[in-house]
Amino acid sequence: MKFLIQKERLSKSIQDVIKAVASRTTIPILIGIKIDATDEGVALTGSNSDISIKSFIPKEENDTELVDIIEPGSIVLQARFFSEIVRKLPDSIIEITVDDQFKTVIHSGNAEFVIHGLDAEEYPRLPIIDSEHSFTMPADLLITLVKQTVFAVSQSETRPILTGIHWVFENNELIAVATDSHRLALKKATLQTEFANNQAYNIVIPGKSLSELIKILEDNNQTLVEIFVTTNQILFKAKNLLFYSRLLEGKYPNTAKLIPTDNKTKVKINTKEFLQAVDRASLLAREGKNNVVKFTTMEQNMIEITSYTPEIGKVVEKVKSLSIEGEKIKISFSAKYMIDALRAIDGSEATIYFTGTMRPFVIKTDQDETILQLILPVRTF
Amino acid sequence: MKFLIQKERLSKSIQDVIKAVASRTTIPILIGIKIDATDEGVALTGSNSDISIKSFIPKEENDTELVDIIEPGSIVLQARFFSEIVRKLPDSIIEITVDDQFKTVIHSGNAEFVIHGLDAEEYPRLPIIDSEHSFTMPADLLITLVKQTVFAVSQSETRPILTGIHWVFENNELIAVATDSHRLALKKATLQTEFANNQAYNIVIPGKSLSELIKILEDNNQTLVEIFVTTNQILFKAKNLLFYSRLLEGKYPNTAKLIPTDNKTKVKINTKEFLQAVDRASLLAREGKNNVVKFTTMEQNMIEITSYTPEIGKVVEKVKSLSIEGEKIKISFSAKYMIDALRAIDGSEATIYFTGTMRPFVIKTDQDETILQLILPVRTF
Repeated sequence: MKFLIQKERLSKSIQDVIKAVASRTTIPILIGIKIDATDEGVALTGSNSDISIKSFIPKEENDTELVDIIEPGSIVLQARFFSEIVRKLPDSIIEITVDDQFKTVIHSGNAEFVIHGLDAEEYPRLPIIDSEHSFTMPADLLITLVKQTVFAVSQSETRPILTGIHWVFENNELIAVATDSHRLALKKATLQTEFANNQAYNIVIPGKSLSELIKILEDNNQTLVEIFVTTNQILFKAKNLLFYSRLLEGKYPNTAKLIPTDNKTKVKINTKEFLQAVDRASLLAREGKNNVVKFTTMEQNMIEITSYTPEIGKVVEKVKSLSIEGEKIKISFSAKYMIDALRAIDGSEATIYFTGTMRPFVIKTDQDETILQLILPVRTF
Repeated sequence: MKFLIQKERLSKSIQDVIKAVASRTTIPILIGIKIDATDEGVALTGSNSDISIKSFIPKEENDTELVDIIEPGSIVLQARFFSEIVRKLPDSIIEITVDDQFKTVIHSGNAEFVIHGLDAEEYPRLPIIDSEHSFTMPADLLITLVKQTVFAVSQSETRPILTGIHWVFENNELIAVATDSHRLALKKATLQTEFANNQAYNIVIPGKSLSELIKILEDNNQTLVEIFVTTNQILFKAKNLLFYSRLLEGKYPNTAKLIPTDNKTKVKINTKEFLQAVDRASLLAREGKNNVVKFTTMEQNMIEITSYTPEIGKVVEKVKSLSIEGEKIKISFSAKYMIDALRAIDGSEATIYFTGTMRPFVIKTDQDETILQLILPVRTF
């Protein structure tokens, strides 16, 4: 194998696929990145037990030569060293040569690295996607869909299914839900593809996989992503990128019944002002616990947010709401959950719908009907 | 006690003095910052067993009112909370009120924090500096003096004296030396003050203290620093700032005799190119060890830098030197020490003076005669 390649482009592809490379693994070859040089260009692959990422560098792009293949072939190189070497090479062009014994020479300017590669034949094959379902989505919509839900997945493995995001396809709609059983994030997206009722289906994708995916897509968010779903795998296909993730097995809980449909108090807020007040109040919320703050509606559309820690002191914040309708309310909740929810909503105004001190409450915004956040209160009163 | 103060200025002073506040301490009051409000302004103090920092905010500066003292007084507030609260307060003006019971109310905009303070009477007094020696130095020279030496202090407590920087005053010169016994950094500075031979003296200042000092001075590097030395303390006095450090006790080793005065090989290099080549070669230097690279002079003013790790592979770098004079040399050294030394020298060109494969070598630059770096080779040949 022998080829010349543009350093910047190779470095970018390494940064993408290395997200799938674990630093410790029971399968030694998986600490490597697989390189395949073919007549079409160079492909890099990284894999772990959850995700596999394949990044392709074509021979040419926009009339610029990116790769010059002298002899096709494959090799696996230790990911961390390969990444650091490429990043520090002196010249903008890199020459990579591999001999029969997997000895790999990386040459650039006056620097020459000789490293021991591994046999690419021993690298696991990527899953074959014989798709039952497929659809397309613009990358920016996919990124938003993930960002507005992924923070709410469970960080604990007690109920593994809750570490994933539930995607439900019905008609031409995708509903994404994440919950750690203390709060819930829901986001709807309209798809070009229509799923007839008898074709409706749902999957659960690990939250971590989707977090890695959107990091890669963010540099290239104007692209269109093709998505293929099988029984236990999902494949995201974008320009020069294949991103595979396993799906979580098991039945996702029925979350629809958790979301209250009525409300007794409706408080409309300026998101930024309210968020900053909650953030300050959370400073004195008891450390280690869930940063609980108290929220009380007052006269003249004022809200009072308070927090108290015996050893340190207390904080009282008064925020003017845009409107308060319905019954007075006094409720306690996690400042962190509220901050996460308001950041996800990402509008200048939001409305909180309360149905009582002990009942979950919902946060929505008139500016975007597709997103809903739900938080369970903490019983302190 | 009661005063109004500008948030930005208070926040800056907190960031300065908090550098002396340990998060864990056996003296509970030292997790606090002491606030003194007097008719002149507000002073903040932070202290640990090594350093004490006092930052002063005057009532007025350049015709701008910074502080409005309503009632003088003192209080000690938990440093971390106080710092976070001030940083997040909504308004540019902060009002701080303390009652007889040390209850402190911090008010800004619609936010009000009530925190328990501690009695300022219990806060340790700062050392009284009855100085035997004093002199002045521009802040930027002091910063350079520290930066060009501090990285070479010992990180180990085996020989505590080597964790400090040795300052020797003689005639009108200050010589600063740091060594961890594997490498040495030396920097000379000319002072305005003259120390007659019978007044010559030397001190050892903890490297950590000086690192903290220059972080604070860097925002204000055009100022003049007054320095007062006693038997066991040093005080740096800049505009609105007092910085005290303890001195290290014990005799600093005689380092002058370590520095070779002759040389057998003289290699002049382009600092940047050579540094990058050493950095790359160190990638494959055995992990955990001292990143040893081999340096060999070649024909036609070329230098070869190589590194080898059996499990990973090898690297060969060829760098053109500006000139090679004297005997051929083949020597091994720590890539990290070489990189540190070249970064400290901070000139476009440097000269390495070798006196043999087993002897320490010296790095200097024609562009700045006041700095010298010395590295002990590693025996691998």
